Amino acid sequence: MKAEIIAVGTELLLGQIVNTNAQFISRECAAHGIDIYFQTVVGDNEQRLLESLQLAAKRADVVICTGGLGPTQDDLTKDVLAAWTGSNLHIHEPSMEAISTMFASRGIHMVESNRRQALMLEGSDPLQNDTGLAVGNALTFEGTHFILLPGPPKEMKPMFTNYAIPWLKSRMTDEIPLYSKMLKFAGIGESSLEHELLDLIQSQSDPTIAPYANEGEVTIRLTTRAQSAEEGERKIQATENEIKNRLGQYLYAEVDIPIETAVLQLLGKNQRTLAVAESCTGGLLSDLITAVPGSSQSFLGGIICYSNALKHKLLGVPMEVLEGEGAPGAVSVETAAILADQLLIRTGSDFGISVTGVAGPSPSEGKPVGLVYVGLAQKDATTEVFTLQLSGNREFIKQRAAKSALYQLWKQLKDN
Amino acid sequence: MKAEIIAVGTELLLGQIVNTNAQFISRECAAHGIDIYFQTVVGDNEQRLLESLQLAAKRADVVICTGGLGPTQDDLTKDVLAAWTGSNLHIHEPSMEAISTMFASRGIHMVESNRRQALMLEGSDPLQNDTGLAVGNALTFEGTHFILLPGPPKEMKPMFTNYAIPWLKSRMTDEIPLYSKMLKFAGIGESSLEHELLDLIQSQSDPTIAPYANEGEVTIRLTTRAQSAEEGERKIQATENEIKNRLGQYLYAEVDIPIETAVLQLLGKNQRTLAVAESCTGGLLSDLITAVPGSSQSFLGGIICYSNALKHKLLGVPMEVLEGEGAPGAVSVETAAILADQLLIRTGSDFGISVTGVAGPSPSEGKPVGLVYVGLAQKDATTEVFTLQLSGNREFIKQRAAKSALYQLWKQLKDN
Repeated sequence: MKAEIIAVGTELLLGQIVNTNAQFISRECAAHGIDIYFQTVVGDNEQRLLESLQLAAKRADVVICTGGLGPTQDDLTKDVLAAWTGSNLHIHEPSMEAISTMFASRGIHMVESNRRQALMLEGSDPLQNDTGLAVGNALTFEGTHFILLPGPPKEMKPMFTNYAIPWLKSRMTDEIPLYSKMLKFAGIGESSLEHELLDLIQSQSDPTIAPYANEGEVTIRLTTRAQSAEEGERKIQATENEIKNRLGQYLYAEVDIPIETAVLQLLGKNQRTLAVAESCTGGLLSDLITAVPGSSQSFLGGIICYSNALKHKLLGVPMEVLEGEGAPGAVSVETAAILADQLLIRTGSDFGISVTGVAGPSPSEGKPVGLVYVGLAQKDATTEVFTLQLSGNREFIKQRAAKSALYQLWKQLKDN
Repeated sequence: MKAEIIAVGTELLLGQIVNTNAQFISRECAAHGIDIYFQTVVGDNEQRLLESLQLAAKRADVVICTGGLGPTQDDLTKDVLAAWTGSNLHIHEPSMEAISTMFASRGIHMVESNRRQALMLEGSDPLQNDTGLAVGNALTFEGTHFILLPGPPKEMKPMFTNYAIPWLKSRMTDEIPLYSKMLKFAGIGESSLEHELLDLIQSQSDPTIAPYANEGEVTIRLTTRAQSAEEGERKIQATENEIKNRLGQYLYAEVDIPIETAVLQLLGKNQRTLAVAESCTGGLLSDLITAVPGSSQSFLGGIICYSNALKHKLLGVPMEVLEGEGAPGAVSVETAAILADQLLIRTGSDFGISVTGVAGPSPSEGKPVGLVYVGLAQKDATTEVFTLQLSGNREFIKQRAAKSALYQLWKQLKDN
């Protein structure tokens, strides 16, 4: 099945946002055996959008559009497709009800234009929006399938994965389905991982081996074509085992979950609790953890000890450790260890993680940007401190530091 | 001047990387008055690349290509363009020398294919590569300008800014440059904002009015053509004033910064400090604040009081407020107020923000998903609590709650 992606939005052409939607859809399609031949971005312009739709329809079996389903005047996707295909637009009642309910519950007056978000093309199937208001559409016109998705990634992603992919798969029954398996690694960079697997990657044919890096984690997707999960499993087994032999110590999951989920699963299983002390990560570590539903089972909370004052006041790091001639300083093994230890005492948690370092852009305490210490304390065990030297900008260093801290805790929990 | 961007690379179509090049080039073009009408991504395939080049040349004055200039067999851009235009490829000697020197200095044997990186189309101008090996090309064929850039962003960006833009500008002397201004709003949703401005947006011609939403903030870009900043300012003034009259209370900046930067600027100006207590936002609010370089000037840190135990232990919320028959509970005006008040006492900050609510996916304490209380305490002033009813998934609720908390603090600081 050949597909094209059309992202609609003048903000993309102005470079105000990056087209992450195209990447997400492309990756999902690759995983389901749908080949993407072109990605196009077009502005909120009737004539050019129509031109793009017609060209894509001529070349592909499926045209996947994102954007232009919102309530405003420049949200045109459904109107343009309706005009071209000669179909009417009607209100999808369940979506309209959800919209009205949302406005009523917030006590906000609903403006008329919001009704546009409930519109559907004649003969199309609704694609449910679990995280927003605009309903998606799936339809077939002159042999080409059209999938209309909202632009905001938070709405587009679940709609595509949960509703559009099944709709498409039910229309590609004559193809042998893809079977894939994800292996998730942390504590190792993408190029080191690729280096370890270079011979496998270069000689790959079946299964295919696709590694990609994502914010401090590396994913390998093994893919083959198979009529059943058992057959698929059998076809990838030898390759999978070889990869595990070489990189097993970094493998934290065999499903697509972030490392924080793997950590929370182990904490839950062992009925252990966690608290964190964040200096240079500044809340990101807690944010990653609390992004996982149910994290409150194991995660007590923590302290953002961003200033030295709070490292001292809230976590009892002596001022003579933090400041002054010859003091170790806030970014030091000593501070990381005290922060982690004190977490256990002050929060009553079973594990304490601390992160202190220089996120940049400027050095601090004469220490270089990217130097980070991770402290790991555990009831009735010796506290460990890990030293990291990370590169990249401030955002990247925060992200890598948080993921590395989670990796250290995961290793500890796994071996417990 | 009308332009299109073609990014070449199968890795983009597989979703292995995101097309940040298109965003960068689009933004630079917008700043220089070059209008981007389409962005296309095509794989390393001769026929489809040729098709894309020909279509773009028909529609635009300038076709900007990235990718496909490397040494390998699937780097095809120059070959495809040479075949189409009937021009020969020749070695650019200065680039060839740089390539040989690099290999010699690293003591690596240069393989023949590396010569491909020094190729130039007949009649083209070289675009120097200060950060890599492949030379860029700029040429005009049948009235259309073609800019060929390498794919890696660290090579493409300096080449585009320093060499391609000047080359293009020398060919657009008769056009009047663009002048634009950004207005940033918080505390109001995109559709409400557009509703307030509907008559202006519908009747817009000069300046153009482009609103777009981004994670709890709304941006409006006003754009006109002008020979000088003064002229540009004068041409947008009436529209800008009218927008400010209607929505001034939500306008937190006239440059493209997030609300957390605006808050930090006001805190810095008034030499005030901030601490936060986060329950349902779970670290996100601190993460947003500490993403801003220099935030340590005003941001002391905070407490992630995710569990009731930590609300009690670290911020002194009485257990009888948090739990038990008839207690207000963790998600309540009472808890939000105590958390904010206690921050001032325990951290010594001038301002304290607390956020407590139900991020979902399930209700908590019998309270609905999306109900959030924001407490705002200030030295020598009465503590205020704001009630929010947010919709969306867990991630969205956390994001909106954090941005709303920042908006309340911004309002307070602005009026101080």
